[in-house]
Amino acid sequence: MSLLVVGSVAFDALETPFGKVARALGGAATYCSVAASFFTGVNLVGVVGDDFTEKDASIFRGRHIDLTGLERARGKTFFWAGRYTDNLNDRVTLATELNVFATFNPKLPPAYRHSPYIFLANIDPKLQRSVLSQVSRRPKLVALDTMNYWIERTPAELRETLRHTQVLMINDAETRQLSSQHNLLRAAKHIFKLGPRTLVIKRGEHGAMMVHDNSVFSVPGYPLEEVHDPTGAGDSFAGGFMGCLASAGSTSDAALRRAIVYGSVMGSFTVERFGLDRLRTLTRREITARARHFRRLTQFRL
Amino acid sequence: MSLLVVGSVAFDALETPFGKVARALGGAATYCSVAASFFTGVNLVGVVGDDFTEKDASIFRGRHIDLTGLERARGKTFFWAGRYTDNLNDRVTLATELNVFATFNPKLPPAYRHSPYIFLANIDPKLQRSVLSQVSRRPKLVALDTMNYWIERTPAELRETLRHTQVLMINDAETRQLSSQHNLLRAAKHIFKLGPRTLVIKRGEHGAMMVHDNSVFSVPGYPLEEVHDPTGAGDSFAGGFMGCLASAGSTSDAALRRAIVYGSVMGSFTVERFGLDRLRTLTRREITARARHFRRLTQFRL
Repeated sequence: MSLLVVGSVAFDALETPFGKVARALGGAATYCSVAASFFTGVNLVGVVGDDFTEKDASIFRGRHIDLTGLERARGKTFFWAGRYTDNLNDRVTLATELNVFATFNPKLPPAYRHSPYIFLANIDPKLQRSVLSQVSRRPKLVALDTMNYWIERTPAELRETLRHTQVLMINDAETRQLSSQHNLLRAAKHIFKLGPRTLVIKRGEHGAMMVHDNSVFSVPGYPLEEVHDPTGAGDSFAGGFMGCLASAGSTSDAALRRAIVYGSVMGSFTVERFGLDRLRTLTRREITARARHFRRLTQFRL
Repeated sequence: MSLLVVGSVAFDALETPFGKVARALGGAATYCSVAASFFTGVNLVGVVGDDFTEKDASIFRGRHIDLTGLERARGKTFFWAGRYTDNLNDRVTLATELNVFATFNPKLPPAYRHSPYIFLANIDPKLQRSVLSQVSRRPKLVALDTMNYWIERTPAELRETLRHTQVLMINDAETRQLSSQHNLLRAAKHIFKLGPRTLVIKRGEHGAMMVHDNSVFSVPGYPLEEVHDPTGAGDSFAGGFMGCLASAGSTSDAALRRAIVYGSVMGSFTVERFGLDRLRTLTRREITARARHFRRLTQFRL
């Protein structure tokens, strides 16, 4: 089944202890779509400026990514510049230029309106809701990402959007902020009252945790000897997760667990190189091998 | 097979957001012995003062813990006072009074000298080595804990002791400090050159990770809705780990993985109540149930 991804497409200037890139294609919707395309067909909704070239678009070609919904506006593409500190756990934003993204108003092409799986990347919750209002059939699963900015600035809008969301996919700091609970199980109970029935907590090097109903599932971070650039890890995780679910056409506990593993696989590949470089050359065979490695990493007999 | 545990027996004054205790029996060797005694017979070497009563010793009675090696010296028992901050991740030491522990010089009773499994809790590496020099038969497995104090103050002594150690069991900050490597896989490679062939990294709420040969195993932290007191979690982990190994009489990869799970089980119980309170009432049946819960927490099908 196809996956609808709505979010930012951007150019990033990145600096990590391993190097520097002045202009790398990035943005949540980009990472998510490319990661998901290894599993299922993706319909991408976003906006780029007139500095977005055919060469930039080449990352989407030859994959099952439909670009009908990628709007081209006059002006420059969203630009973000950031620097990661030595241990790669903290990052400093050096510049954020919204450009054409400032007036982004997602419009679903008619063919996208039946999308059974929808991922709403981190954008204004009002816009996330406007996407859902354009969907003509009740989707099978809506997953949403958000951030501290919306939790603080537009809590009412976010709550209204969460009412229409089945899966909330955020990091641990955001989970704690949204729920005012430090304990993640208590935080999950709080969040379930807001609408979502599944909470996926992204924990960076510590992996991911999923809570739904009375089930908790944890997967560790994949041990890598070198992490070159953490940018896009969470969005690649979301892409692997949603792509895997959409491909299975199921939202069972087993399907969700498998999706968490494939999400972790995709996140772990992304951080190995700068920007989208690792995903560009990635093969389905490597994905399968790493998923098996996740099994070896976690399996035990009592 | 029996397990030899050498380390501190102490009284702790504890303060967490959930309450306050003025005098709780504690110390690394105490937590470790009690946790291990659910799996195997324990020979305990430590020192207490004349303030250590029969009532205090009752925690050891009725368990397979031999106290021949628990020396009684004139003076007061080691005392530690600490306060945990709101999220329980950081702690402040309010008082450390070494008392009889200041001149602790571990002496192995003759019956202890053939111990095949040895856990050297966090004490002066010189003393840890003196224990090994008293062992008359080559042990099957020596595991060691240490801390930043010894890594900084007595690096040469620690290195000499590590040469005789098979398993190093420390937290992530200590791993990074000892190896001067932020990346834990690189840190493991560095540590393997010092002697140990297995590195067990305790990561608190994030669980534990084991690296040996080319195998990496990760287990998540057990999700608890309430953590009342993190004191002794790492030592209970060590007790479960070593007790499980000694009971199996094996150091295979499968046995080590199982030991990590039972270590995590014991640590997760300890933090549910203050001091040793949870271990006091714990049953083997509860341990088995939680180990199975760890399996549910981590299992998936690709």
